[in-house]
Amino acid sequence: MDYLDDLVTSSGAAAYCLYASSDEPDMRYLTQFITHDPVPVIKKPGGKPIIIVPVMEVDRAERESTAQVITRQQAGYQEIIKQERDPYRITAALIQSCAHGPVVVPPGFPLALARALETTHPVILDSQSTIGQMRSIKSAGEIAHITEAQRAVEEAMKNAISLIRAACVKGGLLHYNDAPLTSELVKSTINTTLAMNGYTAKDTIVACGEDTAMPHCTGTGPLLSCQPIVIDIFPQSMDSGYHADMTRTVSKGRPSSAVCELFEAVSNAQTLGESAVKAGVSGAECYQKVRDYFEEQGFKTDTQGFTHSLGHGIGLEIHEHPSLSPVGEMLKEGHVVTVEPGLYYRGIGGVRIENLGVVTKNGFDRITQFNQEMIL
Amino acid sequence: MDYLDDLVTSSGAAAYCLYASSDEPDMRYLTQFITHDPVPVIKKPGGKPIIIVPVMEVDRAERESTAQVITRQQAGYQEIIKQERDPYRITAALIQSCAHGPVVVPPGFPLALARALETTHPVILDSQSTIGQMRSIKSAGEIAHITEAQRAVEEAMKNAISLIRAACVKGGLLHYNDAPLTSELVKSTINTTLAMNGYTAKDTIVACGEDTAMPHCTGTGPLLSCQPIVIDIFPQSMDSGYHADMTRTVSKGRPSSAVCELFEAVSNAQTLGESAVKAGVSGAECYQKVRDYFEEQGFKTDTQGFTHSLGHGIGLEIHEHPSLSPVGEMLKEGHVVTVEPGLYYRGIGGVRIENLGVVTKNGFDRITQFNQEMIL
Repeated sequence: MDYLDDLVTSSGAAAYCLYASSDEPDMRYLTQFITHDPVPVIKKPGGKPIIIVPVMEVDRAERESTAQVITRQQAGYQEIIKQERDPYRITAALIQSCAHGPVVVPPGFPLALARALETTHPVILDSQSTIGQMRSIKSAGEIAHITEAQRAVEEAMKNAISLIRAACVKGGLLHYNDAPLTSELVKSTINTTLAMNGYTAKDTIVACGEDTAMPHCTGTGPLLSCQPIVIDIFPQSMDSGYHADMTRTVSKGRPSSAVCELFEAVSNAQTLGESAVKAGVSGAECYQKVRDYFEEQGFKTDTQGFTHSLGHGIGLEIHEHPSLSPVGEMLKEGHVVTVEPGLYYRGIGGVRIENLGVVTKNGFDRITQFNQEMIL
Repeated sequence: MDYLDDLVTSSGAAAYCLYASSDEPDMRYLTQFITHDPVPVIKKPGGKPIIIVPVMEVDRAERESTAQVITRQQAGYQEIIKQERDPYRITAALIQSCAHGPVVVPPGFPLALARALETTHPVILDSQSTIGQMRSIKSAGEIAHITEAQRAVEEAMKNAISLIRAACVKGGLLHYNDAPLTSELVKSTINTTLAMNGYTAKDTIVACGEDTAMPHCTGTGPLLSCQPIVIDIFPQSMDSGYHADMTRTVSKGRPSSAVCELFEAVSNAQTLGESAVKAGVSGAECYQKVRDYFEEQGFKTDTQGFTHSLGHGIGLEIHEHPSLSPVGEMLKEGHVVTVEPGLYYRGIGGVRIENLGVVTKNGFDRITQFNQEMIL
């Protein structure tokens, strides 16, 4: 919290302020309070974060959150609504009943509330996203949450791959229990395994054939033999809120030599990427090493090829600081990042392999424990 | 889209603008494009919404979204990054390569991007949340999506209640298969049923006893006999993105007379609330009728009692327009709303019963099909 306090003090402000539900990770990180509806959070130097909640939430907030809890009534709601009807001006008045001065806010702060606050005091933009930077360095407890989530991903991936492995091939289509094995069935198996273990997953990817040339195509219909099947699983723990993320590319039967070449290059690039990660190296350098390797192997990147970043931070947010991309910042001890090179070509398909791990002084402490076998 | 175009024209602006992932329902509604990472959306009068996507997403966006798709490269990304490093100024320049003038933005638009845009053109706040208002009136197709989601909720609720019904009581605790039946096990059953059917649920509530006095307590530990158990299920379809929402309160064995009185009052209030809903009546009137009924029955509301609203709109967002609360707006045909009175008292517990349905010219067309039996 010292970073926030320093920023508030050096900005000449009275407090750092959020207005968000717990779906916004900064809010959850500061307060540990779970709410679907947004609430104001006010962090003054030296004090605990304050949340202003409706009466119906006060007992729960006091039990569950780490913040100081005050009710809207205690913040003067009844008086405020005698003079204000606009919901954002009402919220601004509630915030100022605690902040009493200029506030610093994150980049995603709602414009309507910023303008309402500006009618009485300056609103200073934290363009560095300080809470996002704080969140990027994980504690041992946070690494344990991510590791636990990764184990759940691995169980789901094992179940998915077992289905594909056990399938038989009829007319180029995979079959299971005498019916075509579809992307939908494999996704349902993955998502159900995750739900049973306390995780929610949406947009799980089980894409096959030409669809794999679109990195985020979630896939549909029957799975084909001798074609790449990209499986990308990235759930959130219902309990801790932390994510994990893993991708494997498999094929039932030997795919085309073009796909095999992609697989070999991506597999090597994944190893190279992991070996490039280390505290004090920038995400941009890691990205460039892998991109250079692909170029050397003849895999050029323009509108096809290695069209995304090498990886991203992961935590309460699925994509967070740092980025392993052309603009990637310096890696630090305690960052948790994915390393996920991929190659995508229309008419051939795509291959992606993704692990995650912790950035250390000496390198990359891999959390993922799952083999990279392609041909099943 | 006419509402948006009229607003843009009457504001003297060039376009309506969003910058959001598809987790933000306005963005999903306008574009049908699913993305975890935010993208700019520009809607100019008379034209289709335009989305500006990274190269890796272009094929998928063209296949899956209803928007006109252009790549960041086509929007001048390579030129822009020669002069700009700040990500929000880069995004502002991409937007202005399409908008060429002042833009109108929703209340939740990110402040950092608004300030970057303001360096060249005015940013006009749509304080009425026009897309949110458009979203509140559902088409037949949207009502079908919500109805389908509600059927999935009902199956999950049936499984949950079956577990509680089948439990036996030992020393005041429910047991199933010789082990205590816990909140966690019932929640897992609900969430797994939903995942198998293509729905994600988080923060599902199975709260028992004193915990039920906190309306949003999700519950923990063994379930008790002769105590209220509040079950609140509100998942989102992985496919359509629409939600449903239902709450039932049950008890294994007859609870205290105080709880039975709460149940009777809430059950009557639920019927009363549904009968109050009708196009042309305000959400505030519906709320007040139920609150008056509770007062007449001796259930006063201060920091306890009927501490939340009577209901809310539901759709791509779990809580959306209209609100059935003291500030609730006029109800219109095609609104889909929940009716969910509740009473909560410390030391006694809480009871909530929730149905949802469509606002019609003549009343409330209930979608929910599930009984309200309390004692199992």
